[in-house]
Amino acid sequence: MSDLHGIDPHTGAPLPDAIPTSTDDDVDDACRAAEAASTAWAALAPVDRAAVTDRIAHALRADADELVATANRETALGVPRLTGELERTAVQWEQYGRAMLDGELWDVTIDHADLDAAPAPRPDLRKMNTPVGPIAVYAAGNFPFAFSVAGTDTASALVVGCPVVVKAHEGHPGTSARVAAILRRVLTDAGHPDVVSVVHGFAAGRRLITHPAITAAAFTGSVAGGRALAGDAARRIEPIPFYGELGSLNPAIVTPAAWAERRDEIVTGFTGSFTLGSGQFCTKPGLLVVPEGDLSALTAAVTTAPTHPLLYRRIVTGFTAATERLAETDGVTTLVEPVPGDGYATTAGLYVVDAAHLDARSATLLDECFGPVSLVVTYRDTDELRRVLDRLPGGLTGSVHIGGDEDPDAPGVLRALASRNGRVIVDQWPTGVSVTWAMHHGGPWPASTNPGHTSVGPDAARRFLRPVAYQNTPAFLLPAALRDDNLWQLSRRVNGALQTRPNG
Amino acid sequence: MSDLHGIDPHTGAPLPDAIPTSTDDDVDDACRAAEAASTAWAALAPVDRAAVTDRIAHALRADADELVATANRETALGVPRLTGELERTAVQWEQYGRAMLDGELWDVTIDHADLDAAPAPRPDLRKMNTPVGPIAVYAAGNFPFAFSVAGTDTASALVVGCPVVVKAHEGHPGTSARVAAILRRVLTDAGHPDVVSVVHGFAAGRRLITHPAITAAAFTGSVAGGRALAGDAARRIEPIPFYGELGSLNPAIVTPAAWAERRDEIVTGFTGSFTLGSGQFCTKPGLLVVPEGDLSALTAAVTTAPTHPLLYRRIVTGFTAATERLAETDGVTTLVEPVPGDGYATTAGLYVVDAAHLDARSATLLDECFGPVSLVVTYRDTDELRRVLDRLPGGLTGSVHIGGDEDPDAPGVLRALASRNGRVIVDQWPTGVSVTWAMHHGGPWPASTNPGHTSVGPDAARRFLRPVAYQNTPAFLLPAALRDDNLWQLSRRVNGALQTRPNG
Repeated sequence: MSDLHGIDPHTGAPLPDAIPTSTDDDVDDACRAAEAASTAWAALAPVDRAAVTDRIAHALRADADELVATANRETALGVPRLTGELERTAVQWEQYGRAMLDGELWDVTIDHADLDAAPAPRPDLRKMNTPVGPIAVYAAGNFPFAFSVAGTDTASALVVGCPVVVKAHEGHPGTSARVAAILRRVLTDAGHPDVVSVVHGFAAGRRLITHPAITAAAFTGSVAGGRALAGDAARRIEPIPFYGELGSLNPAIVTPAAWAERRDEIVTGFTGSFTLGSGQFCTKPGLLVVPEGDLSALTAAVTTAPTHPLLYRRIVTGFTAATERLAETDGVTTLVEPVPGDGYATTAGLYVVDAAHLDARSATLLDECFGPVSLVVTYRDTDELRRVLDRLPGGLTGSVHIGGDEDPDAPGVLRALASRNGRVIVDQWPTGVSVTWAMHHGGPWPASTNPGHTSVGPDAARRFLRPVAYQNTPAFLLPAALRDDNLWQLSRRVNGALQTRPNG
Repeated sequence: MSDLHGIDPHTGAPLPDAIPTSTDDDVDDACRAAEAASTAWAALAPVDRAAVTDRIAHALRADADELVATANRETALGVPRLTGELERTAVQWEQYGRAMLDGELWDVTIDHADLDAAPAPRPDLRKMNTPVGPIAVYAAGNFPFAFSVAGTDTASALVVGCPVVVKAHEGHPGTSARVAAILRRVLTDAGHPDVVSVVHGFAAGRRLITHPAITAAAFTGSVAGGRALAGDAARRIEPIPFYGELGSLNPAIVTPAAWAERRDEIVTGFTGSFTLGSGQFCTKPGLLVVPEGDLSALTAAVTTAPTHPLLYRRIVTGFTAATERLAETDGVTTLVEPVPGDGYATTAGLYVVDAAHLDARSATLLDECFGPVSLVVTYRDTDELRRVLDRLPGGLTGSVHIGGDEDPDAPGVLRALASRNGRVIVDQWPTGVSVTWAMHHGGPWPASTNPGHTSVGPDAARRFLRPVAYQNTPAFLLPAALRDDNLWQLSRRVNGALQTRPNG
């Protein structure tokens, strides 16, 4: 098999690191090893798995310099951004470990036998969540740490007791191999060497989703890629759940009152948000909806916005095609034309269309485009604004900028955004995803394949859990967490009443 | 379009009630009406929806005599069973209404802004579950009330704020139409006439899953039917989640100690469980695994077990084919041959195979078969028992009968059953599904398409909810449940700490 090489985005030239493409046997070996390792890993108490995830966080931080340098060669995202992302990745491991200690995600539920229950006497029933088994994780290209080999999908699966086989993203193979080596080293020291494996190459990814040992899959990437893998998952002899986080337009709506009050602040914030990381975030605001009028301040800000090279050739190709299509669409005016540079470099682009034109052409104009480009939509009145809102697709985020508590347009816009997005934001911008209990990163199609689940925050682990109920089961056969003595000190629901954890 | 008629299972003759097959326009009208009704229904406070679901329970009870008589004509399940099932159905509506009052299923989560949060300062974030929108429900044939038009799928969707379009089961069209009329009457009185509609006919079911207004689907039925509809759901322009509860073998394992101790009790319990409702429960024990030896008591019990006619022609055809296939399989011995009677009537069948023969033939022998038939597998030693356990498919339930706390085989059998079933049961039988918080009705394929979700109990409503996070949102724009004053008095997670409901 051929080797994979990262590409220097500054030049488009291959880097020296050679990473072997995984063979079918490599994939099968990884899946079988994960299956064999599953029982022992799942049997650990949450506090013991948390000790391992803490050591992973520590090991990632200990190798930060080399990891960041490698990732920077392969992605050109810059040392400050990559240093921050690696720290976020380490924090995620610590946070997942801690989150499993308090009981919320285990959903421990105990109903004692009740001969007087309606409509029929009931036996003793106790249920809790258990790990589903080995998980296939498809790493993202735009976060070489936080959504890659050691990212949130891997961490949230591993922490609940599921082994993981990661299909590395082809854009940063050297970073992926280095991170994989760190995870394997820590896990080997902990006595569980096979609970994480990494495979490389497109064919390996397709084989992985069909392997009988795999019980669920998590994916972050394109709509087309997600659809293809979801189809593979559904056509298996034993179909498995597929959790894809795909594309999002992330519209930002500005009410007339907000635009009148603080146009400069909005122009600065929007430009910073859609060009951040050269527009390669799934939460990039790809649409700005503002009252009609002068846009010269916005044009000036975008013209001078700093950018860095795009990540991969595929993103360059997509960016070029999408911006050319925008420029040629009837009714669309180019405000700032993106200019390509060396390697994968490009400056930012900005286009404008009035709301009346959007009506007829939303199918192409409302597609997500990775890279530093956004479309401005201008509206004449609130009727036009409402029609724009009605045409918006499902998404991860929708933002609204309002003119204070008296803004008459605020409630309607917020309701419309909440009806089709996973996160709504007031007077802020969607880039920057806090890793916390109340975060939701998901949403109606095409944002995700299942809007009931998140890929960020503790609740992401729910994708990899399934309940098991124990009926009439004597204490000596019950899992520790289901016994009356509450050995793990978890919050639980007992006979219908929620009980917080004893030492919580 | 042609009309649908129920069939009298006692005779195989059509009943007089004529129910019109739904046209494409009927389906489209129902879906559009559901979409239009969605916002107002979703906006109700849980306590106000609970008042409506209580009225539904009341209305079902008020018409019990006529509903039971109609269902008995179409299903021949008998007045006592149908009366009990209708009461269970009414209780489910009351229970779902109450379950939404305490906050668990809303997952209200509040993280206040924190400038010192690691790895980065965080904004104020608040999230809660919200209804996903109109749901397609595919009713089951074997529970004309509890898993049909007014069954657990409809109730669990409606109670969280999702309108429902039910595709009625073709086996009991008259019952479905009568229940639909009751639901529509109560909902019209409540000012929400269009939040439940019912459509009839196979073509209507296929059209329903593809309608753009539908946001998720719940199905109870065959593996083949579930696969087909799941494929339709995945191939939509905007794919939607599909929650199917399909097939389950429900193995019952008897350890040597248990078999030695109380063979007679086990024989009686098993025979009662697998012939209950003529074996047409998704939890019917289709496999009994016992130590080798004399089976004459079992044979005698099955020979005299009471049965009633099967529900539908399709079940008769499947039952006949499966029992003929069993009888002809190498190594399988017929213990009791089923004898067909008038209409859809049949007596029970029982077959036996030794564990060594099962090894090579598990693919066909371990398929679910609806109707009063079960396969006995005999094992010589615990090695053989372990190999049988290794071959078992995913399922809803697995039962084990043990010889007390000293039984050396109990822990291993229970672990094996828990690894691939949604509910494990000790010293009891799987038929009879308690409707309570700790129940889980689901499991790995082919039991369900997503083992993380249940179709019975309050948690069934989670299938129809999606989180929405509100970032930096002033109180006047927040949903009531997310404001600091906790207007709905829900349990919530605030800054990572679980808080039980104020008056809970």
